Amino acid sequence: MVKLPYVLQKENICRFDGDTFFIGDRRTFPLAKTFVACSSVRDIAIALTQMVTQGGGPLQVAFTTLSYCAHRMERGTLPAGFETFKGSAAQLIAARPTNTTMARVLEKMLGEISLLFGQGGDLHSVVQAIDALVLENEQQYDAIYHAMGKKGASLLKDGETVLTTCFAEHTFLLSLAYAQQEGKTVSVLASETRPYLQGARLTAPSLREMGIPVSLITDGMGANFLSKGKVGCYMTASDVVCMDGTVVNKTGTLANAIACAYYNVPYYSFSISPDPSKRNSGDLHMEMRDGKEVIHCMGHLITDEAIPALYPSFDSIPPSLVTGIITPKGILTPDALSGAYL
Amino acid sequence: MVKLPYVLQKENICRFDGDTFFIGDRRTFPLAKTFVACSSVRDIAIALTQMVTQGGGPLQVAFTTLSYCAHRMERGTLPAGFETFKGSAAQLIAARPTNTTMARVLEKMLGEISLLFGQGGDLHSVVQAIDALVLENEQQYDAIYHAMGKKGASLLKDGETVLTTCFAEHTFLLSLAYAQQEGKTVSVLASETRPYLQGARLTAPSLREMGIPVSLITDGMGANFLSKGKVGCYMTASDVVCMDGTVVNKTGTLANAIACAYYNVPYYSFSISPDPSKRNSGDLHMEMRDGKEVIHCMGHLITDEAIPALYPSFDSIPPSLVTGIITPKGILTPDALSGAYL
Repeated sequence: MVKLPYVLQKENICRFDGDTFFIGDRRTFPLAKTFVACSSVRDIAIALTQMVTQGGGPLQVAFTTLSYCAHRMERGTLPAGFETFKGSAAQLIAARPTNTTMARVLEKMLGEISLLFGQGGDLHSVVQAIDALVLENEQQYDAIYHAMGKKGASLLKDGETVLTTCFAEHTFLLSLAYAQQEGKTVSVLASETRPYLQGARLTAPSLREMGIPVSLITDGMGANFLSKGKVGCYMTASDVVCMDGTVVNKTGTLANAIACAYYNVPYYSFSISPDPSKRNSGDLHMEMRDGKEVIHCMGHLITDEAIPALYPSFDSIPPSLVTGIITPKGILTPDALSGAYL
Repeated sequence: MVKLPYVLQKENICRFDGDTFFIGDRRTFPLAKTFVACSSVRDIAIALTQMVTQGGGPLQVAFTTLSYCAHRMERGTLPAGFETFKGSAAQLIAARPTNTTMARVLEKMLGEISLLFGQGGDLHSVVQAIDALVLENEQQYDAIYHAMGKKGASLLKDGETVLTTCFAEHTFLLSLAYAQQEGKTVSVLASETRPYLQGARLTAPSLREMGIPVSLITDGMGANFLSKGKVGCYMTASDVVCMDGTVVNKTGTLANAIACAYYNVPYYSFSISPDPSKRNSGDLHMEMRDGKEVIHCMGHLITDEAIPALYPSFDSIPPSLVTGIITPKGILTPDALSGAYL
């Protein structure tokens, strides 16, 4: 089994101790390995809005929040009952309007938690059952990550350099690790991903920690390396995948996907759960964030603070630019997606 | 006559006082309006290598350096004679290996300075003649800038938003200013242009100073706005233009040019002097800079300092992606360029 890097180890994404919930602060890593301490689900939701953790982090936060609420009920610091879970889930879901995976997983688990309360056992048994439910879901996703990592590895050729944007987490890192385990020499070109620099701060250090060669570039440089024939494929995560194969991912992905099509380089996106409720880009909610984030870099002002800026968080990449979507159900072309998921 | 913004006013690009040569530091503007003080041509060349000024700045530095050398000869702090000019020009030229405009202008002016020394007048008369020569060349370029700005303005439509990368200086800013003077409502989307942030620090504040609406975006966001139909055209400067219409400009330009072609949005590049000695991209010298610049942002480390990074300074944009090149000889298609310049 491949060892995950620091940022993806569960206890570094989030954990709780009594009434305090700790979230690993991805905004400052690797310059600092700090945690944001939350004392309520409301605090946790605010931390998600403030991008303390991002990408796949919120799903792990959601899992741990369910256990956190259950244990606080048993300690008597939260009202016992299903309504508390319902309200908590709603707050977390509202904090991440574009990525729907956490929302759908929480809704499914809420159904199961509702049944547990309906069975009328004592609170301690319900809490134990919720812990077991959370563990079962975590293990299910861990298995999915590794299976998708092996699928991703099968797409990588010996000697190839992979371009990536933002932080594609487990599935991407495991693809590289499994390719390397299979004896392939692979390396990564990571786009820094302004304004939050997830590529510079999360992807590059994580790959380095795993012993996979990586070079950092700025977000405008992808096409430069593609034009020189130095990129074998482009791989990213996805925040949403629609049933027509439209991929939603961090801004900057579209520019590289277009350049890949121009230079005939394949673009693969990982999706742990394509969204059956989204037919196409018309069904998407695309988050706009505060432009103030663009005129800062790691807390430092980069220009006159009066300069207006725009921050569309996500790109919508049309299916015609997507070579394949790596899912728990296999590597699917955009055309094949609805057949597998509807 | 349109008033140029602070960064483009000659005395803010560079000036000299006695033996000290001051270069406006574009690396810290607008957060600080400081000057780097040089005490020799060697210092000036080092400052150019270190990007104290960039884009069109080095051409103005070259003009002023000729006067600086002449006056130092008269003060007796530099050896009088043509050899001093020849050596000084060589140092400046070596500092900017990709952009050939300064090199070609200096070579032409060196021929004229050689003649002045050959005529055998006294040093004072030669120095006066060199000042006149510099002034004549400056005025010639000022006239070119304004004429090209008027040509650029003719391409802009009322209500249009122009995407740009890096700092396209006089010709671009004047295009916007003349369009506005003609009663057109125009606005700009400026890519921040990492790692040096010329877009964030030079373009955006200069446009704001000129009263032209501008919004800052990160380098990965150009395609996002193009995909939404929000960009009327893309305009950049060029560091070199080859005779086949290949445009060399700051990294990040190629990605946007490809996205423009994908969305059928025209791409125009300004060139004050297409280079007749460069047939095509095969004749180019493309500068690679230190990757350390990518892992910093305005002097602050953005990730683990052990992360390797790559910094190709310039993109080469193939003629098929270029709609038109705005030159002193008119707005030319890539095909028409060699007919006008060879």
